[in-house]
Formats: sequence, C-alpha cells, structure tokens
Amino acid sequence: MRKGFFALILAAGKGTRFKSEKIKVLHPLLGKSMLRLVLDCVFKLKPEKIYVVVGCQKEEVMKEAPPGKVEFITQKRQLGTAHAVRAAREALSKEREKDVLIVNGDLPLLRPETLKPLLALHQKKRNSLSLLSAELENPTGFGRIIYFGDEMRVVEERDATPSERKIKEINAGVYLFKIKDLLGALSKVSNQNKKGEYYLTDVIEILSQEGKKIGIHKTTQTEDIVGVNSRFELAGATEVLRERKNKALAEKGVTIYDPRTTWIDLNAKIGPETIIYSSVIIEGKSVIGSQCWLYPFVHIIDSRVGNRVKILSSTMIENSVIEDEAKVGPFTHLRPKTVIRSRAKVGNFVEMKNTIFGRKSKAGHLTYLGDCKVEEEVNIGAGTITCNYDGKRKHKTSIEAGAFIGSGTELVAPVKVGKKAYIGAGSTITKDVAPESLAVARSEQVEKRGKAPRKRGK
Amino acid sequence: MRKGFFALILAAGKGTRFKSEKIKVLHPLLGKSMLRLVLDCVFKLKPEKIYVVVGCQKEEVMKEAPPGKVEFITQKRQLGTAHAVRAAREALSKEREKDVLIVNGDLPLLRPETLKPLLALHQKKRNSLSLLSAELENPTGFGRIIYFGDEMRVVEERDATPSERKIKEINAGVYLFKIKDLLGALSKVSNQNKKGEYYLTDVIEILSQEGKKIGIHKTTQTEDIVGVNSRFELAGATEVLRERKNKALAEKGVTIYDPRTTWIDLNAKIGPETIIYSSVIIEGKSVIGSQCWLYPFVHIIDSRVGNRVKILSSTMIENSVIEDEAKVGPFTHLRPKTVIRSRAKVGNFVEMKNTIFGRKSKAGHLTYLGDCKVEEEVNIGAGTITCNYDGKRKHKTSIEAGAFIGSGTELVAPVKVGKKAYIGAGSTITKDVAPESLAVARSEQVEKRGKAPRKRGK
Amino acid sequence: MRKGFFALILAAGKGTRFKSEKIKVLHPLLGKSMLRLVLDCVFKLKPEKIYVVVGCQKEEVMKEAPPGKVEFITQKRQLGTAHAVRAAREALSKEREKDVLIVNGDLPLLRPETLKPLLALHQKKRNSLSLLSAELENPTGFGRIIYFGDEMRVVEERDATPSERKIKEINAGVYLFKIKDLLGALSKVSNQNKKGEYYLTDVIEILSQEGKKIGIHKTTQTEDIVGVNSRFELAGATEVLRERKNKALAEKGVTIYDPRTTWIDLNAKIGPETIIYSSVIIEGKSVIGSQCWLYPFVHIIDSRVGNRVKILSSTMIENSVIEDEAKVGPFTHLRPKTVIRSRAKVGNFVEMKNTIFGRKSKAGHLTYLGDCKVEEEVNIGAGTITCNYDGKRKHKTSIEAGAFIGSGTELVAPVKVGKKAYIGAGSTITKDVAPESLAVARSEQVEKRGKAPRKRGK
Repeated sequence: MRKGFFALILAAGKGTRFKSEKIKVLHPLLGKSMLRLVLDCVFKLKPEKIYVVVGCQKEEVMKEAPPGKVEFITQKRQLGTAHAVRAAREALSKEREKDVLIVNGDLPLLRPETLKPLLALHQKKRNSLSLLSAELENPTGFGRIIYFGDEMRVVEERDATPSERKIKEINAGVYLFKIKDLLGALSKVSNQNKKGEYYLTDVIEILSQEGKKIGIHKTTQTEDIVGVNSRFELAGATEVLRERKNKALAEKGVTIYDPRTTWIDLNAKIGPETIIYSSVIIEGKSVIGSQCWLYPFVHIIDSRVGNRVKILSSTMIENSVIEDEAKVGPFTHLRPKTVIRSRAKVGNFVEMKNTIFGRKSKAGHLTYLGDCKVEEEVNIGAGTITCNYDGKRKHKTSIEAGAFIGSGTELVAPVKVGKKAYIGAGSTITKDVAPESLAVARSEQVEKRGKAPRKRGK
Repeated sequence: MRKGFFALILAAGKGTRFKSEKIKVLHPLLGKSMLRLVLDCVFKLKPEKIYVVVGCQKEEVMKEAPPGKVEFITQKRQLGTAHAVRAAREALSKEREKDVLIVNGDLPLLRPETLKPLLALHQKKRNSLSLLSAELENPTGFGRIIYFGDEMRVVEERDATPSERKIKEINAGVYLFKIKDLLGALSKVSNQNKKGEYYLTDVIEILSQEGKKIGIHKTTQTEDIVGVNSRFELAGATEVLRERKNKALAEKGVTIYDPRTTWIDLNAKIGPETIIYSSVIIEGKSVIGSQCWLYPFVHIIDSRVGNRVKILSSTMIENSVIEDEAKVGPFTHLRPKTVIRSRAKVGNFVEMKNTIFGRKSKAGHLTYLGDCKVEEEVNIGAGTITCNYDGKRKHKTSIEAGAFIGSGTELVAPVKVGKKAYIGAGSTITKDVAPESLAVARSEQVEKRGKAPRKRGK
Repeated sequence: MRKGFFALILAAGKGTRFKSEKIKVLHPLLGKSMLRLVLDCVFKLKPEKIYVVVGCQKEEVMKEAPPGKVEFITQKRQLGTAHAVRAAREALSKEREKDVLIVNGDLPLLRPETLKPLLALHQKKRNSLSLLSAELENPTGFGRIIYFGDEMRVVEERDATPSERKIKEINAGVYLFKIKDLLGALSKVSNQNKKGEYYLTDVIEILSQEGKKIGIHKTTQTEDIVGVNSRFELAGATEVLRERKNKALAEKGVTIYDPRTTWIDLNAKIGPETIIYSSVIIEGKSVIGSQCWLYPFVHIIDSRVGNRVKILSSTMIENSVIEDEAKVGPFTHLRPKTVIRSRAKVGNFVEMKNTIFGRKSKAGHLTYLGDCKVEEEVNIGAGTITCNYDGKRKHKTSIEAGAFIGSGTELVAPVKVGKKAYIGAGSTITKDVAPESLAVARSEQVEKRGKAPRKRGK
C-alpha cells in the first residue's frame, strides 16, 4: 500500500433502536466504544488523515479519539449517510485525486486484515469505487447488492422487494472512493425514498450508470461484517470480541478454563502460564503477570498484579497494585490506592483502602484497613479495624515492621504502632504504642457462677 | 378468531425420565413451572374455558393455575393421552359443536403467535381436526407424520420402523378438534401397542379413515416445538427462554453485557438504561429501576430496586427494597424485610435483616444490623454489631438521625441511640444514649515497655 | 473381544504450541490430565497390558497412571511418532502374534464405545492394521486419508498439497497393529520429510504397499476425534467433557439450571434431586448428597456434603465435611479440616478452619473460628473471634454444648467455655469459663451529655 488515502468514519447518528440517551457508537464492547474499535482498525491501515463525522453528542464522541490524530467534521442534522459525507466535502476537496476510505461507525468487528484486500484491489484496478461485500447466511439489516448487466446498485433493506431481500450478498458499509468521483456523484443523490434520507448507496448506482469503474471485494471474513443496531446485537458482537481476546491470550500461553464465562477487557494484559478459572472478570487496563492463579468470581478493575500471585474466589480489586507472590482472597475487597507488597497475605472478609501493606505481612480475617501504612512482617489479627474517620475527617494509621496486632483491635487514627510492638486482643488503641511495647486496653474478666441460665432472655 | 373454543391441557403424567419425586410439569424454567408456561400461552389465545387434566400430585399441580381461571379434571390412572382426554369427556360433551385445543403440558416454549395460525386454519377450513407439525433437524422423541394418499396418521417414535424414524415432519402435540368428532373417535381408540396405552394420535388415523377433514399447520417456529422429557432437555429449553427474556429486555433499553451468563427470571422487570454485568442472577418478581448498575456475581431475589442504584460485586439481596440512588455492595447481604432508603450506602461485609436504613446513612464495613431502625444521615462505623438476640428472644435497636457509631461497637438490644449522639470506638453499649451525648464504654490503654517480645508465644 | 491385546500410549512430546513448561498431556480438563483421560478410556477396553511412552517430564507423567497398572517406556529424544513406537520395540517383540492398540496421548475425548468397533473390525477381519478415521467438517490439523486403487496412505497436514487438504476423511491417530507386521514396517520408516521426523503414518503406506490387509473404521462419533494442540483447543475439549458430565448428572436426577456456567469436575459425585444454580464450581473428588441446594457463586473443593444441605451464594468450601440438613452461607469460607455437623447453620462472613462445629449450633455473622471444637446447640454471636495465634504458636478453643457466646467476643486461646455458659457481648475472654457461668469482660458505659458535637472531628 504505497499511495496515500484518507479515511472518513460516519459517527453522527443516534441509533434509535438502542433506546439510549447515549448515541450508538459510544456504547462499549469489552471496554472500548464501538467508535474506538473502528478507529483502532482504521489506524492500522495508516491513512494520511482520519476524519470523523460527528453530530449527536459530539463532545462525547470527540473524546473517543486519541488526541491530535483525528479531525472532526460536524453534521448538524442527520439526513442520511450521503448527507454525512457531504459534510466532509470541503475537507475532501483539497485532494481530489486521492482516495477516501469510508466506514460506518457501527462495524466494531472489522479487522485491518479484512480491509487490506479491498485497498489493494482499489489501487491495483484504479477503481472509482471499490466496496466490501460479503455473502451472509442471514443478510437481514444490510443493503443487498444487485447486479444487472455491467451495472450494479445497492438496495437498502427497507426499500427492497421481497425477492431482493432473498439476496445474500450484502453491502458491508465500507467503501473506497476516488474523491473527485465521489464528490461529483454526491451532488446528484436525492432523498426520494421511504425515509426521505440521502443514501450513500445511491452514489454507487450513479457511478455505475456513468460507467465508472467499480470493484467489489467479497470478503470471506463474514464474522467481521456485523452491523450493530441494537443492544442485543451489541452483546452478540461483544461475544465475538471476547472469543478473539480469549483465543489470543490462550495462544500466548494463558490457560482460560472456561472462555465462555471469562470476561477480559480488550485493554487488559495477562502473562503466560497464568491460570484463570471460570467466571473471572478483568476490566480496564489491568495487567496480570505470569504464573498467577485467578480463582472463580474474581473481579479486577484497572489494577496491576505481579507474577506468581494467587487471587482466591470472590475477590474484588480496584485500582490497586499486588506485587509478586502475594496471596489475596477469598472475599477480599481492595479499594483504590492499595498496594499489597510481595509475599503478603490478605483474605477472608478483609477490606483495604488507600493502604500500603508490607512485604510478608498478613491480614487474614474480618479486617478493615483504611488510610494505613503497614510495614513488613506485620501480623494483623482477625477483626482489626482502623477507625480512620471521626465523623468529620480522615486520619492515618501507621504500623511498623514486625508488629503484632491482636484480634478484635480498634486502632483509633491518627495512631502509630511501633516496631515489633504487641497489642493484646480486644483492645481499643487511642494512643501511639512504642516499639517493642505491649499495649492492652481491656477489662478484667468477671465470672458469676451459675448465673448463665438467668441471663438467657434477660 | 371469533368463534369460541375450549382448551384442554394434559398435565397428569409423571415424567419418569426426570427421576424426580416432583412430576414433570411442575419443574421450573426461569422461575415458572412448565405447566404455568403452557397455561400462560393458552390464556393469551382467549379460550372460553381451560381444562387441565391432572393426576399425579394433583394438589401441587392445581396451585400452578391462577385461581378461578382453570377447571381441573382428574385422571385417576395414567393410561395414555387418549385416556387423559377421555377423562374430560363429560366436560366437553356439553358443547359438542365447539372446538377444543388440546396441548401437551410439556411444551413450555410454545408462544401464542405460533398457535394462532393453527386456530385460523382450523376455523377457516372448518376442519374436524387441525394439528401442528414442524420439520425438525432432529425429530427424535416426537411422533412422525405419515401421509398415504389422502389419509395420514402419526406414528409414535417407539412404534416407528427405522425408515419411518427418518421422517423429519413431526407431530408437535397440539391439536384442534371439533368436539363431537373427537368424542366419536375417542371411544374407538385401543391400547394394542408396545406400551399398552391409549394414544391420542390414534384418533388422527381414525378420523382420517372416516374421511373427516384434517388440516396440518406446519410451523416454521421450530424453536417452540421442544418437548421436555428430561432434566437435561429442561436446561436446554430454559436456555431458549433466557435468550428470549434477555433479548426482550435489550430491546427495551437494558444493556446486558453477557446474556449467556445472565439469569433473569421471566417475572422480573428491569428499567431502561440499566447496565448488567456478567454473571448476575435476578430471581422471582424482582423489579429493578432504570439507570442502575448491577455488577458481577450479584444475586437478587424478590426485591425492589429503585432508579440509579449501584449494586456492587458479590452481593445477595432477598425480599428487600432499595430506594433511588442508593449504593449497595460489594459483599453485602440484605436479608428479608430490609429497606435501604435513597442515597444510603451499604457495603463490604455488611449484613442487614429486618432493618430500615435511613436516607444518606452509611454502613460501610463488617457490620451486622438486625431488627434495627436507622434514621437519616447516620454513620455506622466498621465492625458495628447489633446484639439483637439474647439466647431466647430478639430485641430492637433504634438509631436516630445524625448519630455516629464508632467502629467496633456492640449495641446490646433493646437499646436506643439518640439524635446526633456519638459513640466512641470499641464500646459495648447496653443502655440508651441521650441525644447529642457522647457515650464510651472502654478500658484505659496500658502500655508495658519492652514486654512485647515476651508476649509472643505466651 | 476374546483375544488379548496390548495398548501403547504416546505421551512423550512437549506440545510447543501450549507455550508451557508443563508438557501437553499433563494439562488438565475438568480435573483430569489429558493423559489420564486417555488412560481411563483405554483401561475400559481391558488390554492385557498398557505401555506409555514417556520422554519430557517423565517423572510427572508417570504420576498420572494408577500405580502398578501401567508400564513406562522412555523415549530419550523426540524424533516423531514412529520413533516413539520404536522405543517400545523390545516390549512388544515378546508377543509378536498379538495386536497392539496405539493411541496418541492428546485425544482426551475418546470413549470406549468409539474404539470398540475398531477392535471388533480388526479381530474379525484379521487385519494387519486397522485404523480409526472420521469425516470432519473441519479437518485442519489431522493427517488426511488418501486412497489409490487398493492402496491407501495418510498424508500429514504439513506435507499435504492444497487439494489433499480438502479431503475431509482424517486419520484420528488410533491404530491397531498386528505386532509382527508393525515391527517389520517400523524399521523401514525414514525421516525424509519437511520436519525430519519418523512418522508412524508412514507405516501405513509401507504395509499397504506390501499388500497387507488394512481396515478402516470410520466412526460417526466425530465429537471424540479432537486432537488438542493448544490451550484454546484444550478449553474447547473441556467444554465437550463438561457437557457430557452435566448431561450424565441430569440423567441421574440432578437439576442443573444452567449447564453452560456450571463447572463440575469429572471426579465429583452428586446425588439425585439436588438443585444447582448458575455459576457453581465443584472441584476434585467432592461428593454432594441428594436433595441439596447449591446457590450461585459457590466454589467447592474436595469436600463431602450430606443430604438436604443448603449452600447459599458466594461460599467457598475446601477439604471440609458438611453433614445432613446443615445450612452454609452466604459468604462463608470453610477452610480445610472443618466439619459442620447436621442441622448446624453457618453464614454471612464466617470463616472456619480446622474446626468441628456441632449439631444444631449456629454461627451466623462475621465470625472466625480457627482450631476450635464447638459442641451441639451452641450460639456463636456476631463478630466472635477465636484468637488462635499468639504470634508464635496456634492454640485451641473449646466450647461446650449449649453455650452462648455474646456478640463481639474474642476468645483468647487456649481457652474453654463450659456447658451452657453465657458470655456477655463485647468481652475478651482469656480464662476458662465454668459451666453455667456468666462471664463478662467489659467496661462501664460512661455518658457525657452534650459532648457529641465537640467529638466530631476531634
């Protein structure tokens, strides 16, 4: 592919069948918006420039593009695909001898390898127009391609006759035009049809009638040709992406026991020899190292996990870091800004928030650590709670290396427990504890013989 | 459909392949029994009257019908489908000129739109019998339709020859009879076959031989024609219903990220723009509002959730109410009779039972509230426990507006904490606390310098 | 099948496409290694002896066979399948008149019923070689069978011409040889091919050219013929096994609501009338009784569950025993060596480890019991913690029948609570409590009127 070309992505329409305040191309699949997926595909083809036609919710749409790489063109009213392309007329007319690749923004499954043969065909044959077609088992929703003698046209489904609807070769909504031919034909498109819209597909018939050279690349990658028009179709397209992602991970050495119940966002990365059980969900830009074990019902969001880490069942991790060989879970919630240092162990109804938890330290049961710094080799007993909020402000807790916090301890922040200090079980600690000190705050045990029966049902 | 007709549903058989003490038609699919699904379908066709033939476990079967709308007929012994219809002879013979729609009770996927063409055909052609057929890729288990000249008959699979078994047009088990013709033929059915049963399908051959007018509506809705004969087939049929339910929700504007791992009972309702992650289960008559977020591993049973509510991962909610903009989870268990008022926050190993939790109040960590009333803007510290049971009876706890309960507090019920009162961390509160009071029940912190090393391994 | 035969399983190769330090045949499917699955299948055919050719990681491979039942033969370098069989030459040449069944170790879906017709054919026709073929929709990865006149050969995919690749009849990798004919041909196999390996498939052509009698059994059980060459294919094969397992359970009377999200290891057993919700995972040699209810997001490992047990949502159980009619969960973690006696109730953020929990006892909320013995009818209040670790050693807690442990109690082990004793809420118990005694260790509640406002934000 030597000769340069432009790309134009149509992303102005609302997509009424979504029944959503958010426009169609902003809906996500596996963590990326539909538009972003189309952009990512088109970027890989290396066009000279990418234009995106925006209309509804254009501010939100514009956030989807990597900054500086895309130029936006506003289509004020949405009067059809040809009308959308007309909005780009000025931009395109600067380079009338070049080509433009036009892609509908609702084709999130397109891959560069599916489009490359179309580009090659277009340039080799010096076509005025080359379009992508496919033969679909179920062509519903797509325009059908109709040949008559040397000419051809595309009939939109809603305008098709019953016998035309039986045609299985469809127009995918991806075109390469010689810009000057496109611009010439565009001005001739009318809106005399059922919906009163200007269809880009009419350009095809016009060019065909004018005897311009038109080529069709019929792709066998039919999986890519899925136009997403409803939330149910969105789920179907997402499933295809999930299979692609899970397969790519498996080929790199990740074991995914049950790909159908595993959800891994497109942006997530996972190292080899990691084993992922059923029903694991990894969102955002999470990075998981190698030789990890992720047990079932784990939900990880935007977090970094080192190597040889075990994350046990029913654990939720958000915006946190877990270092090598740590063990987290089951039933653990790591909230944002938590760091679990290597070989630490955290689990069984333990929550941490904005906490650094030191190397080889342990917090194994029923514990809440918030705004806390724990050094290495600390033992946090069951039922330890940092009282970090006094009703008005948050305060910090600091626990130095080797300290032992007895079970059922409340640490009323701000408070500091010194190195190798020992806190007796059941204490409420309100003052700093010196290194190596034993601190206890509890009452004497009183026993009243024979009084238990009366106590029942006081 | 002007002319009235009766409906007769056959629900007497046990279904031995289920290996269940419960009879086949009582087994549920997506929260509704098989029989109830057939009844719901038939109701929508508006018959004048519905009869259900019951036999095994008839008391339980009778509970499946909405009260007053259905008449039950007992078949004492189960000697075949014709024998079941004979049990209804008396009821049917009152209106011999009318028609009766007979449906096997094990067809849970039938939809009214699939049966309507059969009714229309029957009445238009004035048939003695009209039956529903379908051409199935895998016809196993169904009777096959055999034509010979003008006549036709149905051969049950167990009585079919190998070449008959290759026939793909099957008898769905749905019939419309002119009542008088049915009754005439019924008495001629014999039980001379492998199983020694009276087959309703023999009536077809009898009417055919008598030259009565028989029509067949071959439906293209083959998805509806699934006879459920085992628990594995039950799971397969449930999957079809789930796809229908999830698709219907998506069309109304609900985003279901992964329909294949999402289980939403048929009776559940969900508002538009609500987003449902993978692996969410919603049971019973739950109602979820609009613009909610349901994270993974959430299990909701018979509960009402308002609008813009967030329910985070691994949360179980039973028979509770959650008002608008509340946030619940992760790792929360709301047990029956709990109400979470609007904009309240509950989460991280918190359990509530029979508790009203006030507007904007928070219970964020490791807490158990049982038989408790919490007013608005209360802060419940981590590790707060209502001691609502004294070994004999349950008692109530009341916490008034704006109170602050320090972490690690036990509230020994019956007890009341007044408005804007403040309880120090680690206290066991056994007496009522006056409004605006500060209450503490804890020991002095004692520190023994240098004693920590000896304490380890006492 | 009268005549004896040997079996030879090829398990020496690494399987580079797995990108794993562990060799291919050791990777598990539903709790059993690929090799073990092949062994299990071959065992059921009752060969006189089974040889397994091992090479890479032979120590680990040898652990996969039940002790004493299999003989291992080492192939030092991996130079192809014929080379692997040559390694067994000495063993086989003892009984040259007998037959040997050779099976590739990467065919985990083979079932005895699929191989029996091959054995029957071989013996009936007195073939020199009988091989298993199948016609696959997608033959990729398998050698193709090519017939020419009376002769036939197998061409490996990598050596096949484009037109040969279109052949859909494939060589499954399962052979029965007359040993003397095999040994004769083996020495003629060369490594003159693209990979420079000795292919066992060349033996076929050699025997064919020599006019030996060759038979082919083309199986219709194409589901069995899946060669697993990558982790993604492993997941696909696992899905087939899961469907088989779940179907077998359903036929025995287990209700599995959603087989696609249910993971039950091959070794697990489940009794009839047990109901399993979506997203349940049962691993290892777990045994679940009859009439149990397993709610969603339950993860059970190597445990025994009695009859009529309820396990509620989000519960993890490892190496534990749960007796009849107990109720466990939601949000419970039973760690190894825990026994829940009949009719006991455990749930809501409760963890147990090495604990015997008595008949009809209850631990309903936020509790940790470690190294503990609880007798019958004990009530463990919310927030009870056994302090079983003192920083150096673990100690035991013992709670006798009928005791009542108030909420928020720490039991500092070693400690014993006597029969029917009563512990007041919020106590830290450091000394044994006598039977029927009331024990309390807490401070007086002090109230400072009007001081709450100042306390906020101390």
